[in-house]
Amino acid sequence: MKPLRCVAIVGVGLIGGSIGLALRRRKLAARVVGAGSRPATLAAALHTGAITEIAADVASAVADAELVIVCAPVDHIVEQVRAIARACPAGTLITDAGSTKQQIVDELERYATSDATWPAEVAFVGSHPLAGNEKKGPQHASATLFEQRTVVVTPTSKSKPTNVSRLHEFWSALGAKVLEMSAAEHDRAVALTSHLPHLAAAAIAGTTPEQFLNLTAGGWLDTTRIAAGDPSLWRQIMLANRGNLLPALDALLTQLAAWRQALDTQDGVELERLLTEAKRIRDSAGS
Amino acid sequence: MKPLRCVAIVGVGLIGGSIGLALRRRKLAARVVGAGSRPATLAAALHTGAITEIAADVASAVADAELVIVCAPVDHIVEQVRAIARACPAGTLITDAGSTKQQIVDELERYATSDATWPAEVAFVGSHPLAGNEKKGPQHASATLFEQRTVVVTPTSKSKPTNVSRLHEFWSALGAKVLEMSAAEHDRAVALTSHLPHLAAAAIAGTTPEQFLNLTAGGWLDTTRIAAGDPSLWRQIMLANRGNLLPALDALLTQLAAWRQALDTQDGVELERLLTEAKRIRDSAGS
Repeated sequence: MKPLRCVAIVGVGLIGGSIGLALRRRKLAARVVGAGSRPATLAAALHTGAITEIAADVASAVADAELVIVCAPVDHIVEQVRAIARACPAGTLITDAGSTKQQIVDELERYATSDATWPAEVAFVGSHPLAGNEKKGPQHASATLFEQRTVVVTPTSKSKPTNVSRLHEFWSALGAKVLEMSAAEHDRAVALTSHLPHLAAAAIAGTTPEQFLNLTAGGWLDTTRIAAGDPSLWRQIMLANRGNLLPALDALLTQLAAWRQALDTQDGVELERLLTEAKRIRDSAGS
Repeated sequence: MKPLRCVAIVGVGLIGGSIGLALRRRKLAARVVGAGSRPATLAAALHTGAITEIAADVASAVADAELVIVCAPVDHIVEQVRAIARACPAGTLITDAGSTKQQIVDELERYATSDATWPAEVAFVGSHPLAGNEKKGPQHASATLFEQRTVVVTPTSKSKPTNVSRLHEFWSALGAKVLEMSAAEHDRAVALTSHLPHLAAAAIAGTTPEQFLNLTAGGWLDTTRIAAGDPSLWRQIMLANRGNLLPALDALLTQLAAWRQALDTQDGVELERLLTEAKRIRDSAGS
């Protein structure tokens, strides 16, 4: 990617901060302007070099930006992107980093076509970098967070191919593998690969009596690790994708019923079949 | 612990191999004799220095041993310990490293008191080092596997205090934190802290459609990691502890029903309460 003159990052926590660090490390942006609601977070991001300047407000952050990345909790993305679009110069591409896509993409497409304050030459195309973890804040940001990670880009039939290409190039330039799919397809898949594991990890942690925590080891710690994620962010994600998460949870409950049946009837053959099938899938996914 | 003259390890895979490496690294045993059914595994353990010699059979392995550790799949421990006891010199202490304890400890206590071939001066006291992971084989063994890890020791009312002390000293000398509890208490706790997480991790892996594996990230990988464990070993563990695992699974199903209800009714307050409670428990357990 040809280095950008000015990129704005709205929300400089783990994801936004890591985008800034990667852009600077890879010399992909002369200016990285940060905006956000918490002065201490912005100061920390400036201190670590994730951004080159702090904007007084979102409008001034994006006033000169070729690309804007909105790294906000999913419930705030639509409203933030709408406010940002009004302040952008012609030609600006806006994207996000939200864990759910359909609701965000659908609403923004409606606004972009029907809202008179949305400038004709400003576009939004959704992104989801599959690179978060249980930590938060710019102090955990890393210039290598996106290397070899998947970023899903979710254009619609109305997205201009040049904007989709710009977004591909951007995430690829940060080291990511870019996948393109519809927002609906994305949400269906991540309900099973991200939101359901989060729910299950939290349910396992919630099932563990505290007096037994001294008997936990690597297995429990790995299996429940993401349950340490931010409860408010995850409430928003789960509710935004509940249409896909509910059937995913029902699929897990069906699986668990088969495990329960095998245990209850002491069916060692079936138990080993279930364990073997799980191992086969897990082994094919990497470490 | 005063260094031992001769320790026998029966089964030199991940756990047995790591015991040998730790004993040698810490200069805690002059001789570490290995025995097991697979010549290639024994050769690998000798090559890495986990054992100092390979015995032709179990009887000759233990003929000179002050301490014997049986690192076998849980279904084989009772039978192996019985065969070993007959071949041990007076004063030998035998322990195991099995993930379940009650069945093993109960059966061996019955044999030790009723079986005429069990020598009066040979004792068994059960152990469970909470230090395994999804890998197997001596090539993954590590001299530091037990450092800061918990090892549960499960004496009975018939165990001699001197033997319990010897076992405490042994595991402490390898760097572990030793907890003493009844076999029943141990099995109840690990059903929730180890066997249930394994079952759930495998069920999540089993629920993931393979065409979505390219959309997995750190959360899925952590949550399902232990599902890569050996299916045959885990079938044995789950069946041996099914009396505790079934109620643990039912507790998880009750939790999941609460999550489903909150999702289904779009009850954000309850969803955030469940997420917050899970985070609180996870945060108190370390990383």
